Amino acid sequence: MIKIGIVGYGNLGKGIERACQVFEDMEVVGIFTRRDPGLLKADSPVYSMDELDSFKEKIDICILAGGSATDLVEQGPLVLKNFNTVDCFDTHAKIPEYFDKMNRIGKENNTLSLISTGWDPGLFSINRLFSECILPQGDTYTFWGRGVSQGHSDAVRRIEGVKNAIQYTIPNKEVIEKIKAGEKLELSTRDKHFRECFVVLEEGADAAAIKDKIINMPNYFSDYDTTVHFISEEELFKDHKGMPHGGTVIRIGETSEGARQNYEFTLSLESNPEFTASVAVAYGRGVFRASEEGKTGAITVFDIPLSYLSNYSGEELRKNFL
Amino acid sequence: MIKIGIVGYGNLGKGIERACQVFEDMEVVGIFTRRDPGLLKADSPVYSMDELDSFKEKIDICILAGGSATDLVEQGPLVLKNFNTVDCFDTHAKIPEYFDKMNRIGKENNTLSLISTGWDPGLFSINRLFSECILPQGDTYTFWGRGVSQGHSDAVRRIEGVKNAIQYTIPNKEVIEKIKAGEKLELSTRDKHFRECFVVLEEGADAAAIKDKIINMPNYFSDYDTTVHFISEEELFKDHKGMPHGGTVIRIGETSEGARQNYEFTLSLESNPEFTASVAVAYGRGVFRASEEGKTGAITVFDIPLSYLSNYSGEELRKNFL
Repeated sequence: MIKIGIVGYGNLGKGIERACQVFEDMEVVGIFTRRDPGLLKADSPVYSMDELDSFKEKIDICILAGGSATDLVEQGPLVLKNFNTVDCFDTHAKIPEYFDKMNRIGKENNTLSLISTGWDPGLFSINRLFSECILPQGDTYTFWGRGVSQGHSDAVRRIEGVKNAIQYTIPNKEVIEKIKAGEKLELSTRDKHFRECFVVLEEGADAAAIKDKIINMPNYFSDYDTTVHFISEEELFKDHKGMPHGGTVIRIGETSEGARQNYEFTLSLESNPEFTASVAVAYGRGVFRASEEGKTGAITVFDIPLSYLSNYSGEELRKNFL
Repeated sequence: MIKIGIVGYGNLGKGIERACQVFEDMEVVGIFTRRDPGLLKADSPVYSMDELDSFKEKIDICILAGGSATDLVEQGPLVLKNFNTVDCFDTHAKIPEYFDKMNRIGKENNTLSLISTGWDPGLFSINRLFSECILPQGDTYTFWGRGVSQGHSDAVRRIEGVKNAIQYTIPNKEVIEKIKAGEKLELSTRDKHFRECFVVLEEGADAAAIKDKIINMPNYFSDYDTTVHFISEEELFKDHKGMPHGGTVIRIGETSEGARQNYEFTLSLESNPEFTASVAVAYGRGVFRASEEGKTGAITVFDIPLSYLSNYSGEELRKNFL
């Protein structure tokens, strides 16, 4: 059994715990939280973050379930001093810096960290790279959704007069079909995605003014065509409690004049955090294997063979999957 | 530059030559054929197979472009004695046996062989395995087409009274949509794919009898719903000269009660041999890297990290693709 520590217990942490129950060779030794451990309802034992280091000999891999903005940049280096780690660091612009830091700490402490897994970064990154390796001549497109964007939902919720809100990012399917049919398009931000908001108003709030504020909000909405629906809080809880997401990576390549080759990878996820968690746990296996081989420092999804994520032997893989 | 030898010069060999012209770090040293080298029209120098061994110091990787049925089982072991190789061996049932043989010969001769790449086996294999690693609870489906099946086309051509013919394998899109919508289906062979034949008759041939022979042909057609069209030879050459193919690997998983996660990988290829060739050439890069690291024996697409297929540095990959 591969012994897992889960650091953080939000939606991602819960998904990791659940995934470990399904992955037959993974066992959750403990969940580590900065909150009061007594307040967490979990299937696995819950401990304070302060106790983590005393588990040094009892845990093979810590999967970090914190957010990228503040948690991981701090926790990643700290946990890596004593444990191998996997995380879903997703602040694209800061990945090089974070990688370098984790690589240095891993090398110094003989530990191994796989950073930035999940589906984007993660599976989508793999497909962007894979398709370009195979089809050097071509164009790659990434579309996201239909799915909930937490950042955009938060931005709407911060508007005065908004009681609650959820925002969906929606890919422009018409544009996707055109691309797949071989049309060469110069696409603006507005062409690629729509945004749709479901908003619960505070009593007496001015719907028209709020709608106006949303659709003109710079960075978040002004570059998009945005639809705003006002609904009751009951409707919000009933119809929008899921956390769906997904998207498509498409590469349209040409191997010779006129020979179009379409490569397409699509995820359609009813639970974004649970899927991300499952990817992280699969890579937990990969880090375990790579670490057993003596690898230290930091790596990404580009750096380990697929066989490392699997529980099957080489013979079984060749017989049943090739 | 990675120096490539191409063994065989049919459609796949031609695609490999073309791909090497696009891949900036690959250079074709020679094409090696069992035919009379003087009869081949190629952009690269053409040599007799008998001369191959004299290129031992001049070639990094031989990409084998022969067929699986008879060529590769013989050529693979022979070429591997002096060269690293990549091939597209696709007789699924014989892969374990072929792997073991190539592994032994590679180990004995300090060479490395990557067998069975392409798109199926190859990219589809990767996606079948990847999706199951991430979603252990679920079902995987593979659909092929719309595309030309050489085996089925040949079977029709062998019927007396048939002058020429081409057969398309067509996935049942309705079934695919149902699967993606979460329906659990018990699918027979007939449910998954249709077959469509375009047949040119010899003069005086009995169309009705030939149609009957086709649709009832055991192994090839009797388990499918088959449509037969009779066309002129001009139409065949005009409308059916391409070699399109492709297909879809779908895994429908569940990460918790009712949380459906759809994973989908789709290829839509206007030239099957050129795409297969491009995959083989990308893996040529991978074998070059792995061999430089001292790896010997046989490996598959499951065994090398994606970064090995790429020409970019680790820094570039993390910055631009993650």
